Amino acid sequence: MHFTSEQRLDDGVLEREFTLGEIPGILWTPASAAAPAPLILISPPPLGLRKTYPRLAGRARYYAAEYGFAAATIELPGSGERPRWAAAEQARADLRRAMEAGEPVGDELVNALILPLVEKSVPEWQAALDALLSLPEIVGPVGYEGGVISIGIRLAAVDPRIVAAGLFAGSLVPTAMFEEARQVTIPLHVLLQWDDEGNDRQAALDLFDAFGSKEKTLHANLGGHTGVPQFELDAGARFFARHLR
Amino acid sequence: MHFTSEQRLDDGVLEREFTLGEIPGILWTPASAAAPAPLILISPPPLGLRKTYPRLAGRARYYAAEYGFAAATIELPGSGERPRWAAAEQARADLRRAMEAGEPVGDELVNALILPLVEKSVPEWQAALDALLSLPEIVGPVGYEGGVISIGIRLAAVDPRIVAAGLFAGSLVPTAMFEEARQVTIPLHVLLQWDDEGNDRQAALDLFDAFGSKEKTLHANLGGHTGVPQFELDAGARFFARHLR
Repeated sequence: MHFTSEQRLDDGVLEREFTLGEIPGILWTPASAAAPAPLILISPPPLGLRKTYPRLAGRARYYAAEYGFAAATIELPGSGERPRWAAAEQARADLRRAMEAGEPVGDELVNALILPLVEKSVPEWQAALDALLSLPEIVGPVGYEGGVISIGIRLAAVDPRIVAAGLFAGSLVPTAMFEEARQVTIPLHVLLQWDDEGNDRQAALDLFDAFGSKEKTLHANLGGHTGVPQFELDAGARFFARHLR
Repeated sequence: MHFTSEQRLDDGVLEREFTLGEIPGILWTPASAAAPAPLILISPPPLGLRKTYPRLAGRARYYAAEYGFAAATIELPGSGERPRWAAAEQARADLRRAMEAGEPVGDELVNALILPLVEKSVPEWQAALDALLSLPEIVGPVGYEGGVISIGIRLAAVDPRIVAAGLFAGSLVPTAMFEEARQVTIPLHVLLQWDDEGNDRQAALDLFDAFGSKEKTLHANLGGHTGVPQFELDAGARFFARHLR
């Protein structure tokens, strides 16, 4: 892990860009580093870190400045400047075509789109976690929140360092991931946009039902995919504060 | 409205019992009465104020001590020491029998149980609101939370003084109330217990869907009817703080 830039932001939060092998990432740590901070991994949507920076940084800086958490993100495989792979490009093109034509998005396409992304990215998040937890200013336990919900499901199911997860039920989920969801037992905070134009409401409710966790909360809000209300940021932070302190 | 008792509690909150005609009630106001406080009406479940006092007082004192709200409740018709009426007693007995026998609770029974309660209690809550808002220490806007969700639906639909409502999707809802729910346009915060043994999950989700409000949030938590997690108290208070300040 190599830090490539560093700046102190006006809220006192320290923002550092880094690379982990060929993967770019960003780490935000609180102004006061009196004690090591619990960490929240913020997984981006598959649109590239540069494109989603304002949203990611807004969340990370809120967690750091208001709650004293560290927060970090890395670029997903196939996003941003990272190399594409042919099968993923094909799946994305097929998805676009199906959605523009108003056709149902079948299981096969969802699998082609999501499963390789899960396979590739989960070990990368775990490697990032190894590196981040070796820094003196960061300590476990670790929270995760994201983006592509299937990555969160797999990570929550396999990595015991992650003790709480905030998930957004806003992306297509392969049927196979429902079975993995039953293996997840950590506390969950799940966001659902009630009228998400790219996501089936009943499937999202079924997924919430499938999680094996004893403590799970669903926050459903009226509105489309990008309409998550601003007040959910603090609700999510409070969820992490209950479990990472 | 006549105050019948008054005590200063150890958190500084002033608790006063009152009667409004023949209806008993309780008012809690914050320790510091520097400025008039916004009001939250807390509607009890139909079990009597005495039986539910610990829960009601716990919520009211939290709102008053932590957020500076006033809070008030009144006894529902047919509950506590208030006179029973034969039709309601019959409906309650029929409900008990149906539930013990594991039979479905039909529309006719739900109507017999809930609609007269709504008809009788909504004007009483409005009369209580008249009286409470005439006190110098209380001011609008007003929030409502409760108990029997159909009472909240009707009240939110007809009384413009109520600007935000926290509802618990935990009681049987007559089909007719779904139509009234479409008339509700104020911000809503709806609690749902995912495994509520006395309430159908799909009906609760359908009701949430039916509300006409542009801002509505559903908080669904794992567990049975009485298992609402402690952290939802503060989440509800923050909802009211957004809309009553």
